[in-house]
Amino acid sequence: MNAIKNAIRDIPDFPKKGIVFKDITPLLNQPKLFQKVVDIFYSRYEGDRIQKVIGIESRGFILGSVLAYRLEAGFSIVRKTGKLPYKTIKKSYDLEYGTDHLEMHEDSIEADDRVLIVDDLLATGGTCNATIQLVEELKGKVVGCAFLIELSFLKGREKLKNYDVFSIVQYA
Amino acid sequence: MNAIKNAIRDIPDFPKKGIVFKDITPLLNQPKLFQKVVDIFYSRYEGDRIQKVIGIESRGFILGSVLAYRLEAGFSIVRKTGKLPYKTIKKSYDLEYGTDHLEMHEDSIEADDRVLIVDDLLATGGTCNATIQLVEELKGKVVGCAFLIELSFLKGREKLKNYDVFSIVQYA
Repeated sequence: MNAIKNAIRDIPDFPKKGIVFKDITPLLNQPKLFQKVVDIFYSRYEGDRIQKVIGIESRGFILGSVLAYRLEAGFSIVRKTGKLPYKTIKKSYDLEYGTDHLEMHEDSIEADDRVLIVDDLLATGGTCNATIQLVEELKGKVVGCAFLIELSFLKGREKLKNYDVFSIVQYA
Repeated sequence: MNAIKNAIRDIPDFPKKGIVFKDITPLLNQPKLFQKVVDIFYSRYEGDRIQKVIGIESRGFILGSVLAYRLEAGFSIVRKTGKLPYKTIKKSYDLEYGTDHLEMHEDSIEADDRVLIVDDLLATGGTCNATIQLVEELKGKVVGCAFLIELSFLKGREKLKNYDVFSIVQYA
């Protein structure tokens, strides 16, 4: 995992002071590392009969869509409010100050679909938790939550403790 | 192409009155059609020695990243202003009213990289044209511009007439 971790760039004070942003663009730029990340995810889930992969806006689209393709699953998206054009369901989630909302098209999951949720980064688990609620409201079964990066010190895994959580690189 | 076209949903008056939005989410939801779209793109570009695929925010991320993976290329992203954390270069482009800006990390392209630009939809060509300028400012070579959907009546292809433009489905 060292090559993967080395290709993730720390950006201090982005998007605001005190936050160290994990920039995955140098990793995506490198074909072999990009392939490797996708192949690690694929190996983890290939036996799980995933029918739908959910990508969370917007970096989750990048890894989620590739994984959907490799798993021969459908791909669905979760977005911030107002960006999806068809009938949606909505969940709020906590931010550091206040709340925000995520939406999903109501026809993006069918009952009993085996669903894998993908995002680039697990922080406090708020967006993933809201996404799980959306999937379950549509009667989908959340088989796993996959992240490239886990900020372990934020304990997002505790919020998702009833679910199978996987990450490729961790920061303690 | 009929199955692909039939899976694209028209949403009248989105994001504003008078616009008919082409919603590709029902297509992405269907594994076989999603695979088919990627395979059509792959067949078109597999001999072109593409080294970098650029996805334009944010639906371009979905198709672009899969295509980068298939072509064993690197994947880079173009975003609206303020979302990329590292040093960027910037171009403005015209909207119906006023202008907007696109940014790219200055290290996302190396000189002489053979680049494929991917987005879900070609309308007037403004965002693609701005993306071409960003790539060329970084000395990349634009090998092609690939779209799932082309709104032919908006004549975006004319704005991109010095480049190889490919689309899977067209609306006249």
